[in-house]
Amino acid sequence: MNRNTHKPILLQNVRIHDRFWSRRIKLIAEEVIPYQWEALNDTIDGAEPSHAIENFRIAAGEIRGDFYGMVFQDSDVAKWMEAASYSLVTYPSSKLEAIMDEVVELIGKAQQEDGYLNTYFIAANPGERWTDLSFGHELYCAGHLIEAAVAYNSATGKRKFLDIMCRYVDYIDSVMGPEEGKRKIYCGHEEIELALVRLYKATGEEQYLRLSQYFVDERGKQPCFLQNEPTFGNIYKDKWFDLAYHQAHMPVREQTTAEGHSVRAMYLYSAMADLARETGDDSFLAALDKLWDNTTTRKMYITGGLGSQGHAERFTVDYDLPNDRAYTETCAAIGLIFWAQRMLLLNPDRRYADVLERSLYNGALSGISMDGKRYFYVNPLEVIPEVAMNRYDCEHVKTERQEWFGCACCPPNIARLVASLGQYIYSQQESAIYTHLYISSNAQFDIDGKTVMIKQSSNYPWDGTISISLTVAEKQKFTLALRVPGWCRQYQLAVNGEKMDFLTIEDGYAVLSREWIDNDEITLTLAMPVEIVHAHPRVRENIGKVAIQRGPLIYCLEEADNGKGLAEVMLETNAGLAAKFDEDLFDGTVVITGNAKWYGGGIGEKHLYQFGEYPAKHKAIKAIPYYLWGNRQPGNEMLVWVSKAFRPI
Amino acid sequence: MNRNTHKPILLQNVRIHDRFWSRRIKLIAEEVIPYQWEALNDTIDGAEPSHAIENFRIAAGEIRGDFYGMVFQDSDVAKWMEAASYSLVTYPSSKLEAIMDEVVELIGKAQQEDGYLNTYFIAANPGERWTDLSFGHELYCAGHLIEAAVAYNSATGKRKFLDIMCRYVDYIDSVMGPEEGKRKIYCGHEEIELALVRLYKATGEEQYLRLSQYFVDERGKQPCFLQNEPTFGNIYKDKWFDLAYHQAHMPVREQTTAEGHSVRAMYLYSAMADLARETGDDSFLAALDKLWDNTTTRKMYITGGLGSQGHAERFTVDYDLPNDRAYTETCAAIGLIFWAQRMLLLNPDRRYADVLERSLYNGALSGISMDGKRYFYVNPLEVIPEVAMNRYDCEHVKTERQEWFGCACCPPNIARLVASLGQYIYSQQESAIYTHLYISSNAQFDIDGKTVMIKQSSNYPWDGTISISLTVAEKQKFTLALRVPGWCRQYQLAVNGEKMDFLTIEDGYAVLSREWIDNDEITLTLAMPVEIVHAHPRVRENIGKVAIQRGPLIYCLEEADNGKGLAEVMLETNAGLAAKFDEDLFDGTVVITGNAKWYGGGIGEKHLYQFGEYPAKHKAIKAIPYYLWGNRQPGNEMLVWVSKAFRPI
Repeated sequence: MNRNTHKPILLQNVRIHDRFWSRRIKLIAEEVIPYQWEALNDTIDGAEPSHAIENFRIAAGEIRGDFYGMVFQDSDVAKWMEAASYSLVTYPSSKLEAIMDEVVELIGKAQQEDGYLNTYFIAANPGERWTDLSFGHELYCAGHLIEAAVAYNSATGKRKFLDIMCRYVDYIDSVMGPEEGKRKIYCGHEEIELALVRLYKATGEEQYLRLSQYFVDERGKQPCFLQNEPTFGNIYKDKWFDLAYHQAHMPVREQTTAEGHSVRAMYLYSAMADLARETGDDSFLAALDKLWDNTTTRKMYITGGLGSQGHAERFTVDYDLPNDRAYTETCAAIGLIFWAQRMLLLNPDRRYADVLERSLYNGALSGISMDGKRYFYVNPLEVIPEVAMNRYDCEHVKTERQEWFGCACCPPNIARLVASLGQYIYSQQESAIYTHLYISSNAQFDIDGKTVMIKQSSNYPWDGTISISLTVAEKQKFTLALRVPGWCRQYQLAVNGEKMDFLTIEDGYAVLSREWIDNDEITLTLAMPVEIVHAHPRVRENIGKVAIQRGPLIYCLEEADNGKGLAEVMLETNAGLAAKFDEDLFDGTVVITGNAKWYGGGIGEKHLYQFGEYPAKHKAIKAIPYYLWGNRQPGNEMLVWVSKAFRPI
Repeated sequence: MNRNTHKPILLQNVRIHDRFWSRRIKLIAEEVIPYQWEALNDTIDGAEPSHAIENFRIAAGEIRGDFYGMVFQDSDVAKWMEAASYSLVTYPSSKLEAIMDEVVELIGKAQQEDGYLNTYFIAANPGERWTDLSFGHELYCAGHLIEAAVAYNSATGKRKFLDIMCRYVDYIDSVMGPEEGKRKIYCGHEEIELALVRLYKATGEEQYLRLSQYFVDERGKQPCFLQNEPTFGNIYKDKWFDLAYHQAHMPVREQTTAEGHSVRAMYLYSAMADLARETGDDSFLAALDKLWDNTTTRKMYITGGLGSQGHAERFTVDYDLPNDRAYTETCAAIGLIFWAQRMLLLNPDRRYADVLERSLYNGALSGISMDGKRYFYVNPLEVIPEVAMNRYDCEHVKTERQEWFGCACCPPNIARLVASLGQYIYSQQESAIYTHLYISSNAQFDIDGKTVMIKQSSNYPWDGTISISLTVAEKQKFTLALRVPGWCRQYQLAVNGEKMDFLTIEDGYAVLSREWIDNDEITLTLAMPVEIVHAHPRVRENIGKVAIQRGPLIYCLEEADNGKGLAEVMLETNAGLAAKFDEDLFDGTVVITGNAKWYGGGIGEKHLYQFGEYPAKHKAIKAIPYYLWGNRQPGNEMLVWVSKAFRPI
């Protein structure tokens, strides 16, 4: 293991008590996890059927029937188990744990004699194991089951699920790998690579780390076996399902641009960072740097969303970021969070945490409704329902969140993210504690064998004042590093009420190395004015437009507040943008008001083209955080990038 | 026949001698028609094969082989024959006429005993006649062959082709129609409806007019037989190939919005206008008015192009006119010209001629290269090759004109349009002559039994001064109406050098009713400054953007003149737009220069998003007429709608 890397705080060691997040974490525990359990069991009226639990019953021989659903339907159960495991840590529930124990029993029953475990290939396609690496998702499902087993073991201490998965991985290891006689294959959808690192960490078994390494090292070697599979190219057999779609167009260390299916890419890059950290293999670092740079400075929406094209859920080319046709899958934003955390653990640089925070509060959080029961798979930055519902190239865009999807990767993914949020707040490297996110919480650390407690309190993201108090048994020297977010242009730090005039800033973190005593109080004040954001000039869709941001939150205009015709709003030079906390809007929200010009829907204008400018009038506008859009009446217009008023010509 | 309607001038009665058009008409005769003949015979290296003549040979039993190509491959031969016929009028050629005679022989040989004539259903699918009205294109091909036969008869006086087609139509008439026992079907792609009106005009046989009426009246009656065909919905079976795709979603007189496949729609509306004119059936007029209004004030690109969506080549919703994903098929712009001319003949109102001129000089003419050998099927208003070639939703966009297409509807369509251009210049209603287009030419009219010659001279569209001189045998009273184009804000009219202070303007035409004497000279001066065009505010893609227009020509920026990064050009308030005739650019072209701000490709800018505005510098820009783009180096960026400079915020 690389000695300079960080470790994340364990979920068990942090308790969140945050106005913004606690209700969401509770919602996951009390509403979302029970709701998704019902979805997995097909008991929700009107939602697309899942059949995921039924598939396990069929594979286990408990009932007769036909497999139904996507080939990767097992992963929905796995992600739910993972989310439920995290939730158990915060909200112990013997009822939930009993259900989970039953699921583990069921999974165990479905496991084959030789350790194999995949309901699609057991129940629907026996004898076809490992014949469709391109789209069969066998190893992908295994990966999610591994992550679930590790989380379940960590939450409950029970080994059964872990043992099932070790048996399965042992079998996988016997079939594929670098050794002579084994098949040189890997999964068309990355996931098992990062899961195996987690399994290694949970069990200490180095063979799992080696298998992960094999999968990553083998990927992209040419000629590529995937191309010889009849399923390669998907049903479309077009260029969008090429090797780059699977990040298999060249060896991973040679890849410098984010290509192909966005979620697949995020999971691969996460695994590469994991391996760099766990094995000390620095040969990954150059590629990771370039991939990070390309992803976040050429191909990332301002919301932290990824994927500019619906077809093949792909990245396209640099700076191609259309707002109305964005794919920006919730899972891709979550994948970016996974990757960003791993980059932070390799090297705590603010730029990683900035992206993590951007995706978390915007492109990922928009995926779930306020009541936790409806989900966006696609998170576009501009929705005009009439257009979205009447253009072929917007077919992937839904104008309201859906109850469940036939391909339901996103709902349990957002659940597992929120339920495990605690582990993203801090990381530790020996006697240095890094604070990456500002979420009110109590956290416990072991520094040089002594227990240190850190209590964070704030009204973040609505307010930038963060209080941190320390509990130490006796005075103790250690380093506390506090992230100064990239969006913050003015900040102040005080220790025990005394403003610090000279700050050491390292890679965007204010580093406080001193001897701390019990009840030491640190106050970080981050100025949080309304900011106007411009996009790089090569993002042609945003020329002449700006976005509104406050703190980590990207704002949007919604029809519910502003009426229809949002594309016709033009922010004035003196827009007078002002933030105000509205206690009554949802669970309390800072809204932003301002002045704009507006064409007024072009009402009464008959000419489609004319020489004179069309008249515009004044309009008061109101913006809400992007993640909140679509939580009021359905079928709303929404817009992130707003036009600027322009000069007469 | 409705007594108030106009008749177009016959092609035989007009000779064009125009700097702009004569070289193009000559090019059609000397290069395009021979070239397309080679294409139809598959003798062009590198072009997609046509096989269209081979198909006739196979159907005629001359050779053995398999039908190849689209089901409507016959129509390529038909449109070529029609274009060649028009060309013969201007450029008599015994060699060409001999080739055409041979084609007529061949077509005659391919005709079946009962009169049926369609190589696909004869050679590839015998026994399946009239089983696929949705996509079989049988009546569509018949329509194009009828138009060709009428044009060929008019050009050569030979009846053979006309007789063949009359026999075919007689057979069609025996199969389908309003009478009991006949099938109640019509074609999924309109065309035969307008062709039958032409056949009626050429032969005087009212049964052809009645058959056209039947097809139009039957269309859209519910339930619709098309839905019962297995082919309905095309291979995609999605909502884009619904009844509206075929304009069969409701009876045609109830249709008020332009829906479905754009070319199909244009041909239907043209036939409706024809029938209104020939039968005096005013019940079409209200629908035509609404359809015209919807098409030209909600769904038409500034170039006169139609169709906002590649998939299903369709109209979408009002004001949805994306520039980079426009379909704007050359054939749809040509179809709009057909329809506009027919509306003019019903009621000579400038708005029809304005649209006709707009499509002619922009969206239609862009379809063909300067050398006549390469064609655009799709005519978008913004092309960034890197994006167009790397986005699934831009797959229909080609970044350079192609030699020939597997689906080659557009090349012969543009050829027949240009070759028959003379007939669009004037129309006549009794003793009133209307001038719709300004094209230097000599035209001959019969007014009250006397011959009147009108000579037009100008350097249009580069210059707005038009001289018209009259030749009459003796002094004669008649009306001369000259269109004052909608784009013209200042104009002057002089007769024999004397400026007219009081003009009668009726529906956009300056109406001169007087007793004319030989050598009377009329001078119309249309001011032609550079104009800045704004789009209706609901065209969201053009908010904050303007287009440059001079006279009837829409201008564009092209990479060849301005480098890459056109989307980053922002026209200044004092843009200083100036027009200059460049004798050396192509065949002489007015170019427009001006001042802009420009981000400079964002070179050196690292941040994808930032709070401050990115710096812009000055840039001199140069615009060329839109129809000329893509005639220099291949793979050029091109942009019609240019950003305005905006206010700081």
